[in-house]
Amino acid sequence: MPKLAVREFGAVEASEGETLLEALRRAGVPVAAACGGLGLCGLCRVRVLQGDLSEPTPREVELLGQQLKNGWRLACQARALGNASVEVPLRRFLAKFRVRPTARITSPALFVPFDASEGEPSYEELLLETLRKAGVEARSASLSALNVLSSRPSGVAVVVEGEVIDVTDSYSGYGLAVDVGTTSVAASLIDLVSGALVAEAATLNAQLKFGADIVSRIRHAIAEPDGVRQLREAVIGTVNELLSKLGAPPGRVYRVTVAGNSVMLHLFFGVNPRPLGYLPFRPVYRRSLTARGRELGLNVHPHALVESLPILGGYVGGDVVGDLLTAKLWEYGTAMLIDVGTNGEIVIKKGGEYVAASTPAGPAFEGVGLHSGMMAIDGAIERVRLRGGGEPEYSVIGGGEARGICGSGYIDLLAELLRAGLLSRDGRLARGPRVRELNGALAYVIDEERGIALTQQDVRKLQLAIGAVKLAAKFLMRKVGVSAEDLERVVVAGDFGYHLDARNAMEVGLLPKVDESSVEYIGNGSLTGAELYMVSQDCRRLALELATECKVLDVPRDTHSFIAELKLGW
Amino acid sequence: MPKLAVREFGAVEASEGETLLEALRRAGVPVAAACGGLGLCGLCRVRVLQGDLSEPTPREVELLGQQLKNGWRLACQARALGNASVEVPLRRFLAKFRVRPTARITSPALFVPFDASEGEPSYEELLLETLRKAGVEARSASLSALNVLSSRPSGVAVVVEGEVIDVTDSYSGYGLAVDVGTTSVAASLIDLVSGALVAEAATLNAQLKFGADIVSRIRHAIAEPDGVRQLREAVIGTVNELLSKLGAPPGRVYRVTVAGNSVMLHLFFGVNPRPLGYLPFRPVYRRSLTARGRELGLNVHPHALVESLPILGGYVGGDVVGDLLTAKLWEYGTAMLIDVGTNGEIVIKKGGEYVAASTPAGPAFEGVGLHSGMMAIDGAIERVRLRGGGEPEYSVIGGGEARGICGSGYIDLLAELLRAGLLSRDGRLARGPRVRELNGALAYVIDEERGIALTQQDVRKLQLAIGAVKLAAKFLMRKVGVSAEDLERVVVAGDFGYHLDARNAMEVGLLPKVDESSVEYIGNGSLTGAELYMVSQDCRRLALELATECKVLDVPRDTHSFIAELKLGW
Repeated sequence: MPKLAVREFGAVEASEGETLLEALRRAGVPVAAACGGLGLCGLCRVRVLQGDLSEPTPREVELLGQQLKNGWRLACQARALGNASVEVPLRRFLAKFRVRPTARITSPALFVPFDASEGEPSYEELLLETLRKAGVEARSASLSALNVLSSRPSGVAVVVEGEVIDVTDSYSGYGLAVDVGTTSVAASLIDLVSGALVAEAATLNAQLKFGADIVSRIRHAIAEPDGVRQLREAVIGTVNELLSKLGAPPGRVYRVTVAGNSVMLHLFFGVNPRPLGYLPFRPVYRRSLTARGRELGLNVHPHALVESLPILGGYVGGDVVGDLLTAKLWEYGTAMLIDVGTNGEIVIKKGGEYVAASTPAGPAFEGVGLHSGMMAIDGAIERVRLRGGGEPEYSVIGGGEARGICGSGYIDLLAELLRAGLLSRDGRLARGPRVRELNGALAYVIDEERGIALTQQDVRKLQLAIGAVKLAAKFLMRKVGVSAEDLERVVVAGDFGYHLDARNAMEVGLLPKVDESSVEYIGNGSLTGAELYMVSQDCRRLALELATECKVLDVPRDTHSFIAELKLGW
Repeated sequence: MPKLAVREFGAVEASEGETLLEALRRAGVPVAAACGGLGLCGLCRVRVLQGDLSEPTPREVELLGQQLKNGWRLACQARALGNASVEVPLRRFLAKFRVRPTARITSPALFVPFDASEGEPSYEELLLETLRKAGVEARSASLSALNVLSSRPSGVAVVVEGEVIDVTDSYSGYGLAVDVGTTSVAASLIDLVSGALVAEAATLNAQLKFGADIVSRIRHAIAEPDGVRQLREAVIGTVNELLSKLGAPPGRVYRVTVAGNSVMLHLFFGVNPRPLGYLPFRPVYRRSLTARGRELGLNVHPHALVESLPILGGYVGGDVVGDLLTAKLWEYGTAMLIDVGTNGEIVIKKGGEYVAASTPAGPAFEGVGLHSGMMAIDGAIERVRLRGGGEPEYSVIGGGEARGICGSGYIDLLAELLRAGLLSRDGRLARGPRVRELNGALAYVIDEERGIALTQQDVRKLQLAIGAVKLAAKFLMRKVGVSAEDLERVVVAGDFGYHLDARNAMEVGLLPKVDESSVEYIGNGSLTGAELYMVSQDCRRLALELATECKVLDVPRDTHSFIAELKLGW
């Protein structure tokens, strides 16, 4: 098979006779190709430094002319016959951002030149006929595209999922991928011409004014007559704030893809999440919803296609689907995904079978309700090690003075205290160095002066959180007949994930005991998943398949088995 | 074949074994049947006074109980085996309005009871599954239906064209049929449960403030940066005014069907009609557009399905498609439709072939620009006869004193003057009784005191208008090889139509010379057509077929042939 050496990207495998565009996009290299590879726009120019490629086509001769002599080729026309060395000219702004080569990029929008100014019987029909002749099937034009078409009967048609959304004069447009979290909302701007990431931004979810957690949001939606509208407008306002931060020209944003937990997705589309507030916690809908930009009040093109990742069921939402796309769980025979947060979600794959469950871990992992707990921001102790004798060594996010402890710091601390014999498996602190009485109970004190400590009560809360995750994970593993040794891969998602020490997580029982090298951290897999859903038809298809195949199970929570799981360790 | 004698409607033919509902709806009798004939709602009760019908089904036993003994049956369950005499209980309000038995009524909306409160995996999926089991295929629920479903997991689902638009608690809903005219807008409220007409209303188009005719509207749309929005909001405001006049509960209006000329349809959906202002007068689009109630700003259900009748091409718009549905032109081998107005439209059918053309007749037929011209409202002379010696006898709309002459009065006058020898075929008034000099030219004076007269200049303008229609009609007839004798039917549409005297219209050459009994008047066929498009799938299918089959031709307007057509008479 021909190998392409791509400058700044590395090696890419091509099938013999495959176009460079296909090979590059399959490897996730974002190549500008407005027309999607029809040889119309000429944007997919790459420079071939050396190698064995097909002869230039008439389209290349027409669009490149003299440039052919200097090695320029159209990636959509040139075919790999043997090895070659290629340079892909990313536009300037793309260079600033990382490239994410995780899935085959397909055109999330097509920009096709057309001329409908002459002929019968109507502008729209002439436009669609031109597209058809160019190989692009579009069923209709949006109302706003028709209105523009009226005074611009020739130009560039912007086609998204078979509809002409806009008629414009240049090959440019953006997509917005969004992860709507209960606490914060993150978004990335995607260049629709290449599928590349342009910029990222995050901010707090304005719904926070209606309560910090999911339950208070549901309560607000149920109790207030106008609650759903208020919650919807709050999150839409947050996304609009991100759009403006990202500097996206509103009229040029043609796609929005939204991931998030079940409740957040319901509220984003103005659907009351009421049934998720009561047993048996069922969602109102599960499918990928679609709407128009204007309909939802987003500052994007009025007819932009807004769509959500499907919900798997109950509290296992579109965020988990995003995680799964990012984790590529299907590449392993047996694997586990664990998204740790206030609500934990676990998915196990075994062969073609997927099972999932959610579990209410509580806010302890986010530092909420603990004596010195805080979020994973500047000033938080994120890593802890105990030297011989129990003296703590720690690192602080941002490098300044410690102000508290975040989730990963607590996991480290518990593991190290277990190893030092200062903590028993059933969660009792033992007297020893730095263990003192605090408000009538024992506490391990890290910083006397600033009052940073782990109290006996903190340990209990962390045991409950870890126990909830463990209970669900073990339940699912039993259900499909998988033991820890069977797991080829354990993927940890959630912001918590990047900082977590796998060995310590296993020690306390948050993760099953597997080889450390099998543990992978994907960070905000929900946002990455939303991006993949937008730029890759493969990922979109996989997500929809997962939505029908993955079984969501209720974890039986009888007191007896739960108490058994409170013991630290797997 | 069994015959049904239907009280207050007359005889209806049924096929043997056909349900009464099918037979009655095919004959255009509006029978309340919320669930569309699935035996679920029980609303299609009819009383069978005598006759040969199938045995009661289990559904009838369950829903009717003791009523069966008194002759009550469910029309959707009872099948005609022989002749029968039937009484259809129309709801009280329906009795006030005429019934329009012109097409097979199919359910324009289905109201299906459901219960999604128990089970997996989501409310929406349970709802759709219930519908499927009842025999109703729906692909999804609208965002607003999902929101309601959240707190009302059982009730009645309102299904329009395969989508659950709303979830409600009763079997009731309305549709609005609209004819958007350049001058006035007419609307009728349709009961979606039965397909019956509930109420009608009309008012002036608020776009009039931007100019009286089509050309000034186009000019406004082109010249003003915000012109299209202003024009759209004006006509939407007019329709909202009609909705309120009709007393339709906004949240219960689930369908809106719009007919109108090409320019009016463009503006209704916010599409700039610019290309219709320039040669070769092509529309931006032709298909049946669809949108949502909220999207367009209509005071109807936010997710109501709004749709337009297709445009045939150029100036031959959705109003003409409505005329064709009303006229049922397909029932004749060879026929002509003529819609007379400021813009005249003509369609000729020959076998399976349809050809159409529009022709700019000018506003003379509406009384505009003539010495004593006025619209066909109270005070207008609508019929004229000359007694021997040329003395006029006339009737006035409303019966009061004459204030002027409307279109049909002018046609009568021209024809009678021709017969009396006071007017030559080439349009010259001759001296004689009541013909006097007025401002330096001859005029036929009807009422000396009030100054009501037909001037020589009026005759010229009427000749131009008649000539334009005649030129187009003859052109089309030549194109398909049809002579006046071949025409089995000549259908006259437009408000002008009801008042027009066929014999006189033939005398002056506005209509080809056919047997008077072949001439039919359908009035506002555009509005009736919009109603039919909503309540009858047959009509909808025919309209879409016509849109692809009917050829719209440009009438060559060389001066020579036009001058030839100025001669009065065919």
